[in-house]
Amino acid sequence: MVEAILSAALERVERGGEDDVPLQEIANRAGVGIGSLYDYFRDRRSVLAALAAKMTEDNLRAFEALLIETEPLPLPESIERIVDFAFATYATNKQVPRGILKIAHSLGLMPTLAKSQSVFTESLATSLRRRKDITHPNIELAAWTVTQATMGVVHALIWEDQPTHEREALRADLVTLCSKHLLA
Amino acid sequence: MVEAILSAALERVERGGEDDVPLQEIANRAGVGIGSLYDYFRDRRSVLAALAAKMTEDNLRAFEALLIETEPLPLPESIERIVDFAFATYATNKQVPRGILKIAHSLGLMPTLAKSQSVFTESLATSLRRRKDITHPNIELAAWTVTQATMGVVHALIWEDQPTHEREALRADLVTLCSKHLLA
Repeated sequence: MVEAILSAALERVERGGEDDVPLQEIANRAGVGIGSLYDYFRDRRSVLAALAAKMTEDNLRAFEALLIETEPLPLPESIERIVDFAFATYATNKQVPRGILKIAHSLGLMPTLAKSQSVFTESLATSLRRRKDITHPNIELAAWTVTQATMGVVHALIWEDQPTHEREALRADLVTLCSKHLLA
Repeated sequence: MVEAILSAALERVERGGEDDVPLQEIANRAGVGIGSLYDYFRDRRSVLAALAAKMTEDNLRAFEALLIETEPLPLPESIERIVDFAFATYATNKQVPRGILKIAHSLGLMPTLAKSQSVFTESLATSLRRRKDITHPNIELAAWTVTQATMGVVHALIWEDQPTHEREALRADLVTLCSKHLLA
């Protein structure tokens, strides 16, 4: 039931309706009564906070699976796959991340999102520690820096209306930047 | 008069009051009549949009002055000064950037902010082109990437409530990341 409610909320965000998400409409779309919705969620904020948390968790699980898959590859190829994952997840259909960011800012969820982003940096650090090819002296710190650098690029892609560079060129440049940093 | 109104609006944002900025109170603080305020600004949105634009312009001017000042320095020292500027401007008193970001998201100004961020990347590219020590084959692209990488780190600092790394350590790591990328 929670799953259905969150799917309905996500659908609404995808249609660009993050400003006004009437719980009655969410309940209708999810095929549940409004009373049942209130059994699980106190208010609009708690539905949207749960949606942001669920998306973050799903992304983290996908990211961790990708890390395991790419560990046997040479570093630049792993980084390439990770950058592709970040672009595909956050910078392809911009409507969703734009909506989630709007919601997160208006509901005061940004510190929570920043905290979960640091969980991504820890997963990356754990994976990098298992590799043999990293030469950066402080893997935790380097994982943090390249993750934030990548998210900085992703953030620019989410919000720019007119691309300033070809996606392919900046993908290659970001891969180089991250690889060189880890092979310090 | 416009200056006084925007200063009063900024003061309000600094006190964390970005959710509700009553124009009457802004006018009072600025020492102008509400009628005069409406001579310059249509509504709350236009006051806050003008505030965001003014802050971006002021930061851009300061950034360009810094670039001229640091051009004679070796690249890592220049980058160090630029990173310090970014940290001081956006990640020291977090209340202001948090407030401005909240406003920008709720008023739909993020694409405009992204566009002005790309002006910073162009100023940096112009300065890097005048230097003799850059070896990256595509200066425009590299300037874009290192700027977004730096803003990604700054963004994390703005929103994290508990620091995950010492500020000094990640400053050094970010300087290394940018310098190495430009000296490709």
